[in-house]
Order: sequence, then structure tokens, then C-alpha cells
Amino acid sequence: MITSQQLEKPISDARDGLVQYASLYRDELLQNILPFWLEHSKDTVNGGFYTCLNRDGSVYDTDKFMWLQGREVWCFSYMYANIAQKQEWLDMALHGADFMEKYGRDKEGNWYFSLTADGKPLVQPYNIFSDCFATMAFAALNKIKPEERYRKIAIDTFENILKRQHNWKGIYNKAYPGTRSLKNFSLPMILCNLSLELEDILGSQRVNEFIPIVINEVMNVFYQPARGLILENVYEDGSFCDSHEGRLLNPGHAIEAMWFIMDLGKRLNDQVLIEKACSIMIDTIKAGWDAEYGGIFYFLDVKGVPPQQLEWDQKLWWVHVEALVALAKGYTLTGNDQCREWFERIHNYTWSHFKDPQYKEWFGYLNRRGEVLLPLKGGKWKGCFHIPRALYQISKTLEMH
Amino acid sequence: MITSQQLEKPISDARDGLVQYASLYRDELLQNILPFWLEHSKDTVNGGFYTCLNRDGSVYDTDKFMWLQGREVWCFSYMYANIAQKQEWLDMALHGADFMEKYGRDKEGNWYFSLTADGKPLVQPYNIFSDCFATMAFAALNKIKPEERYRKIAIDTFENILKRQHNWKGIYNKAYPGTRSLKNFSLPMILCNLSLELEDILGSQRVNEFIPIVINEVMNVFYQPARGLILENVYEDGSFCDSHEGRLLNPGHAIEAMWFIMDLGKRLNDQVLIEKACSIMIDTIKAGWDAEYGGIFYFLDVKGVPPQQLEWDQKLWWVHVEALVALAKGYTLTGNDQCREWFERIHNYTWSHFKDPQYKEWFGYLNRRGEVLLPLKGGKWKGCFHIPRALYQISKTLEMH
Repeated sequence: MITSQQLEKPISDARDGLVQYASLYRDELLQNILPFWLEHSKDTVNGGFYTCLNRDGSVYDTDKFMWLQGREVWCFSYMYANIAQKQEWLDMALHGADFMEKYGRDKEGNWYFSLTADGKPLVQPYNIFSDCFATMAFAALNKIKPEERYRKIAIDTFENILKRQHNWKGIYNKAYPGTRSLKNFSLPMILCNLSLELEDILGSQRVNEFIPIVINEVMNVFYQPARGLILENVYEDGSFCDSHEGRLLNPGHAIEAMWFIMDLGKRLNDQVLIEKACSIMIDTIKAGWDAEYGGIFYFLDVKGVPPQQLEWDQKLWWVHVEALVALAKGYTLTGNDQCREWFERIHNYTWSHFKDPQYKEWFGYLNRRGEVLLPLKGGKWKGCFHIPRALYQISKTLEMH
Repeated sequence: MITSQQLEKPISDARDGLVQYASLYRDELLQNILPFWLEHSKDTVNGGFYTCLNRDGSVYDTDKFMWLQGREVWCFSYMYANIAQKQEWLDMALHGADFMEKYGRDKEGNWYFSLTADGKPLVQPYNIFSDCFATMAFAALNKIKPEERYRKIAIDTFENILKRQHNWKGIYNKAYPGTRSLKNFSLPMILCNLSLELEDILGSQRVNEFIPIVINEVMNVFYQPARGLILENVYEDGSFCDSHEGRLLNPGHAIEAMWFIMDLGKRLNDQVLIEKACSIMIDTIKAGWDAEYGGIFYFLDVKGVPPQQLEWDQKLWWVHVEALVALAKGYTLTGNDQCREWFERIHNYTWSHFKDPQYKEWFGYLNRRGEVLLPLKGGKWKGCFHIPRALYQISKTLEMH
């Protein structure tokens, strides 16, 4: 006869169960993912990085999207700081930063959205996320190679983000003022992460003042207790707006934000916050999971009516690897066994669908059935960022036991 | 023994072969499509039309997109003028026009992109296609119910379109000036059709001056003989731009434009132009056809590298019904037997995939396999326009024999 105690594995055993994954994630990072970008993305003629890369790493388009330049500089700086001081990683970070510094900004210090291969501005600085990743890049680079000019670029860009944050679309904002004033989840979510990334530069006191504000935005404004989910857009006062924007769920965004919050909870030694973030994360995964074909949907409508996004049912790389990070952290910090179960389910889905058996780097875009929709390894949105960051975070989190 | 003459059916027989379809398309229009919109889209409280309609016609969102308001006014006016003077059609057109007139424009006469149900502006007039369909709507309404104010709205809007045409995005244009100056195919394509729609109002002389300019744009600038296809974006001088925008193919757009050109060719009695448009249309269908699952792709990259549009492989209602119009016209005007073959192939695909066996109106969005991706019958882009216009055009074209 099996007792209920025997059925419920003790937490420590279960934790041991995930330890085995640590080396797999670390090896994938070091043997496949970072080498892919080192080999294929460097533009040795013009500087900077190509990110539109075919399955085998060959370049299919030469435009340079500033947020992906920033993310790749951040990535190699971060790996240098956290894994090993490899010269080729430092060189790669400096190579990207040099191009960004030369060509990336307009006269007011706003970061362009995209440039030609040789650095001419193509698309105006309409998107504040270019600035977010630029500040992360230069803050990370300044940590491994302190230079006053890197520090200044990071801090000036960060101050500019704060200045623009409440109307960051500026002249490109198409919303008619006053009729339906919504605020969007993306910026507070990224600020959660940015505040920690910039602590060296901003100083702990400023970060400590900043943290409660972003936590409040994420956990009390965008999180809607009545629905148990985080919405992408709410009215200025935090209330629900019954419109396409207001009903939009972006499960990947919400899941990613929950590991940022868990990181903040760990820093604040706030177990209640960690448990809450973990629980919202699990609920979001359940809400976003495709029971028919597996994988997490890209977009959903909270009332179940048709979303506007035609790509709603696709399975995207970043959603799945961010979920794995959140589950690894959630499991380690709370011991909630649902985290382990979901980690294993999403691990199996991710490795059997996104990993390319033939070439380094993973696929980014699958259709609902999990078949490759676009064979690219990098493009306008996919660069050297989510996968390496996630592989590092997961291996680091799991090997800590 | 069968001779080659016996194998090649005479054109007249083959033409007879498509006549059978005329009544099917006409019945679908009169028994299903127009009744669906009459029953479900009228907002009897605020005026105007709901277009976000579920599979059964129930309303799932109440925002009003101005181009769909204009298209529905155009549709009921056009059917009244061309099929039968049904009072309910006239009432429907007036009902929509009244709402548009009251709430649709800013102080400069630009048409907003969207309004709330009760007519408050939501999204600024960033999109000139709202204006294109507004001018079409009021021109069509003025034909069936001549009123100076309708005529004036149509002509003022048309003049405003011409004034804005070379920089219609205005302040919302995100392209950095000078680096990569591209022009887009959409506006010249619509102007082809608009010029004929507005002939009553503009006068034949002005239309006659206008026609050669738009034909030249479509057939000599955006059509690229070296590739045998129409590109969505070219450099100002008509040359090919090797970038995501420059490589973009939108087969549905090109196919639709070819029946506008065939209409202009008929008016000009220019058989060479008609044959050329027909031949480009067939080549575009061949290039866009999905040999694996059937149907025409939404977007392709002319060099075969990954397109930026994640929805590239979806099968959209308008692409398929516009292809059927183009093929019916091509067949009737040229006798090219490939038009008949493709008509029958796309007819079979369309009726077996887009038509809903349970409710009136057709589905709009299928995945690559031809399964329903979104069950909506109307939304932000799908309204009372492409299907009824196509059903009318096809039945009219085929019954002329």
C-alpha cells in the first residue's frame, strides 16, 4: 500500500531531479549558441552585427536593428563577466559597442530603430526598446571594461528612457489623446530588469527607490486579481478596458516578467512576493498552454474572442525559453512541484521543436503544430539574446543545488 | 486517333464552361453575404456599422474602423446601383454615411483610422486608405442619391488624397529621410480603381488624364520585367531595393491590381494592355500558389529568403476572391485557357475552405493547411467589401456570355 507521503516526493529529491539539466543547458550555450553568433554575426567590414541569418548562419539581409545590436553587446559582456573572461567575448562586445557608439543615436541621444549595414539611419528612434537594450549593453560593457564614456552612454540613455517613459511614442503615437488612455506593460516590465542591470551605475540607493515603483506597476496595476492574469494594456487607473488592446494577453511577456520579479523578491528577501510571482507565472503558463498541440501561444484574448494578431497561435522561441527560466527559478525559490512538472513538459517541447538537429542555434518561429514556420536563426526580432541568457540563467539556477 | 485540334477546345466552348458559375456567385451574394451584413452589422443605437463579428454574426468588439465603414457604404450603394433598387440597401448605405459624415473626419478633412462605437476618435488619420474608401463611399452614394454634400465630401477627400499621396504617412512616417526612399504599390493600385469609381464626379476628361499616369506606375514602375512580378516597394526611380521591403511580394495585391488594369484596358479598348495584365496575373498566381497545401500565400520574399511577416503562409479570403475576379475577367477578355483552369482550381479551394457550411458569410483567415485560424466573419480588416464585390464582379463577368 502506498501512503500519501510516499506519493509526495520530498522537495529536496525533486530539486535533485532538475539538477541533471544544468550541464545540458550550459553545454548548449558554450558549444552551440555562442559559437554560432561568434562565427556568423560579426560584420568585419562595417563593424556591428548582422542578425538576419539563415538556418546555417549565412547572412540573408544586412540591415542592423539597434535593439539586437544592444542585446548582443550585452550578451557577450554578460557572459564575460559571469562565465569566463574569454578574449573573443570581450572583443565581440567591443566590436558591437563601437558601431553603436559611432552610428546608433540621433542628436538628442535617442537610439535609431535600424541602420544600414554601414551605419546610415534607416528608421527613426520611434521605439524606446532600442534605448532599453542600449543602456543594458553599455552598462554591462562598463562592468567588464570600465570606461567613462560607456558609463555616460548607459546613464544618459537611462535618464532619457525615464524622461520619455510616459509618452515614449512621442510624435509617432497614433492614439487620439483622451479617448482611451491606455498604458502598456512592456516598459514597466523591462524597467524591472533594467534597474538591477544598472545598479553599478545608478547606485543602490536609487535602485532601492526605483524597485517598489516597478513592482507595484507589475503586480498591482497590470496584474488583475479578478482574472488571475497580467494584461498587456490597462487604463491609466489600472482598470480593465474591454477592447482588443485591453483584452490582449501575451503569456510570454507575463512569464518573463515574473522571473524579473522573483529576482527582485530574492534581492528584497521577500518570500511573499516570490510566491506570488511564481503562482502568477504558473497560472499564465496554464492559460497560455496549447492543450491540442503543445507549446505556449503567442497571443490570446482574455475573453476568448478573436485576437487581432494573425500570428496569435504561433510558438515562439523566446516565450518557451523565458518560461523555462521562470520555472527553474520558481522551483528553486519555492519548491512548488508544479514548477518541476511544467519545466519538464516545456523542456521536452522546446528541445524537440526549437533545437535544430543540423546547425547550431535554434529555430525561432514555429506554427501552431510546432513545425518550422521560418527557417531563420536570426532576424528583425530574434538575435543573440533570449536563448543564451536563458541557457545561462537555467544552468546557473539549477546547478546552485 | 485524337487530333491536336480535338484536344484544344475552341475558346467559345471553354467560355461556356464558366457560365455555369454565374448563378452560384450571384445567389451566394444575394442569399447569404448581403443578408449577413444587413442582419448583423447595423448599429441601431449609435449609427454606423459593427464589423467585429463572430462566426454567427454576433458582435465581439464595438470599435469602428473608418475604412470598413466606407467600404460597407460603398458596397450597399453599389449593389443598389447595379443589381436592384432595394430600399433596405439604400437605407443601409445612408445609415453608414450619416455616421461617417458626423464623426469620421478631423478639422482638416482627414479621415480617422478608428472611432469608438459612439463616434469618438480613437486612432488618428495616419492611414490614407481610410480616405480612399471614404471617397469611394460618398461617390457611390452620390450616384444613387445625388446630394451636393455627398459629392463635396467625395471630391474634397479625393483632392486631399492627391495632395497627400507622395508623403501620405506625414508625421507618422518612421523612415529616416533620404537613406532608402521607397515608394509603395498600394496607393497607385487603389488610384487605378478610384479613378473609375469617381468618373461621375471628376468628369471624363480628368479621369482620361489620370489613367495613363496610374497605368504607367503599376505596369512600368512596380512591375519588374526581369522578375516577371510586381513588387510591393521599389526605389523612387523604380529600381529594385534588396531589403525586406524591396523583396516583398504580396500576390493578392498584384492580382487585384491586374483586374483594375484590365478594366482600364477595356475602357481604353487596349487589348495589348489587357493581355499583359492577364499574363502578369497568371504568373503571379503561379508564383503565389502553395503547391503543398493549395491556396495562395499572403506574403513571399522574391529572393526566397525569410519574409518579416509572420503571417506569410496564411490563406486570406480577399486574396482568393480577388484572384477569382481577375481570372473571370482575364478569361472573358482574352480567352486564355489557363485562366479557366486556374479559375476552377481556385474556385474549388475557395468554396471548400472559406465558405462556412453553417452560417452566412465566409471565413477570412485560414492557416497554411487551410484550417480556420480565426473564426471571425469580420474584424479590423475584413468587412462587407471584398466578398460581395467579387461575387458581383464574377457573376456579372461570367453571365455576359
